[in-house]
Amino acid sequence: MRKAICLLSGGLDSCVTAMIAKKQGYQLYSLSFDYDQRHKKELMQAKKIAQSLQVKKHLVIQTELGKLGGSALTDTIPVPPGSALRHTIPVTYVPARNTIFLAYALAYAEVTSSLSIFIGATSIDYSGYPDCRPEYFKAFQHMANLATKRGIEGNKIMIQTPVIDMSKAAIIKKGLELGAPLHLTWSCYQGGDKACGHCDACLLRLKGFKEAGIPDPINYENK
Amino acid sequence: MRKAICLLSGGLDSCVTAMIAKKQGYQLYSLSFDYDQRHKKELMQAKKIAQSLQVKKHLVIQTELGKLGGSALTDTIPVPPGSALRHTIPVTYVPARNTIFLAYALAYAEVTSSLSIFIGATSIDYSGYPDCRPEYFKAFQHMANLATKRGIEGNKIMIQTPVIDMSKAAIIKKGLELGAPLHLTWSCYQGGDKACGHCDACLLRLKGFKEAGIPDPINYENK
Repeated sequence: MRKAICLLSGGLDSCVTAMIAKKQGYQLYSLSFDYDQRHKKELMQAKKIAQSLQVKKHLVIQTELGKLGGSALTDTIPVPPGSALRHTIPVTYVPARNTIFLAYALAYAEVTSSLSIFIGATSIDYSGYPDCRPEYFKAFQHMANLATKRGIEGNKIMIQTPVIDMSKAAIIKKGLELGAPLHLTWSCYQGGDKACGHCDACLLRLKGFKEAGIPDPINYENK
Repeated sequence: MRKAICLLSGGLDSCVTAMIAKKQGYQLYSLSFDYDQRHKKELMQAKKIAQSLQVKKHLVIQTELGKLGGSALTDTIPVPPGSALRHTIPVTYVPARNTIFLAYALAYAEVTSSLSIFIGATSIDYSGYPDCRPEYFKAFQHMANLATKRGIEGNKIMIQTPVIDMSKAAIIKKGLELGAPLHLTWSCYQGGDKACGHCDACLLRLKGFKEAGIPDPINYENK
């Protein structure tokens, strides 16, 4: 059985991406990262999504990204509401986050003899992060195949970004079509029990469900 | 003052590399990694080297590489003596280790506005690791500049490998010439108080000092 690593953030995009991988027949190994984020709830949800998708193994890696500093998601800088919808790199950008996550995924792919790494990045409706663009993933894949024993032995590792060209609404529709556990996903940047409804991630999510014409199955404050 | 990130393993190559960066006028930020290695002593020595080089800040990152498994350096697989001198990828290979270390360095470079990342990799007298080759570092640098805010804003980050073409003997001579604190370096893969003298790393080190015609300043067992 072909194996793949799936990065699970607990959010919509990675949940649907993992479901796409599963439907393609891969046996999944999932990775989540504790990067001193404020919204630890996403780690709990990632674990529930992994269970729902019956992955072979789910690992949570402590990355200590907060030690390095430099982001509103890990520092004590406030997250300004609405900044996701502006077209600049926002304060929620975590330096080199995807590079660190993919580096771990690469190590895990090597250890598990996985052929692919699935990551739910999207360059449409995105938050302006440089490490969510197709040219970045292409460059990572090239580097990855020079970095590893499997790569130099000719067993090329592929970085798979099946939702990269999809809008949030299209991702939600795809998730429903495949039976992805969207009710288990979590997007909110704040650390509350319910989603706040006005941070960058909530705004993008709500806009997506609205455009998809489907009610969001999770709970929001003041709703 | 120009800033640079230096990866410090506690070993000879990274110590001399950091000294080269310092002599080039960079203000240094150093990073060491706890990757569940057996030879934690190298982390103590890395800190001493950082102090000796008067770096601006030294961070130790817990990477949890052991959770992924797959290497004699992090697992309980024994390290067979002498395997470094064979021309195959040895059991001490840690999957994607340099990619993970450089990913953290990239994040730290972004946070500190550093221009360069110095890594003491060498492809001469090396242990057969795919992620120590010049083509790998070139590919990482290309990816890094697509991954980061600084990169896409035109402040290119350079991956600097000043000792990559040098033999161990040449690195040792360079270190002496620049006044690098070679007496603080640690190479042995075993976890003892004194170096074992017969693991891969000790054999390469001893060969280097012998060829350089200089006595090794550290203590060995049975000496």
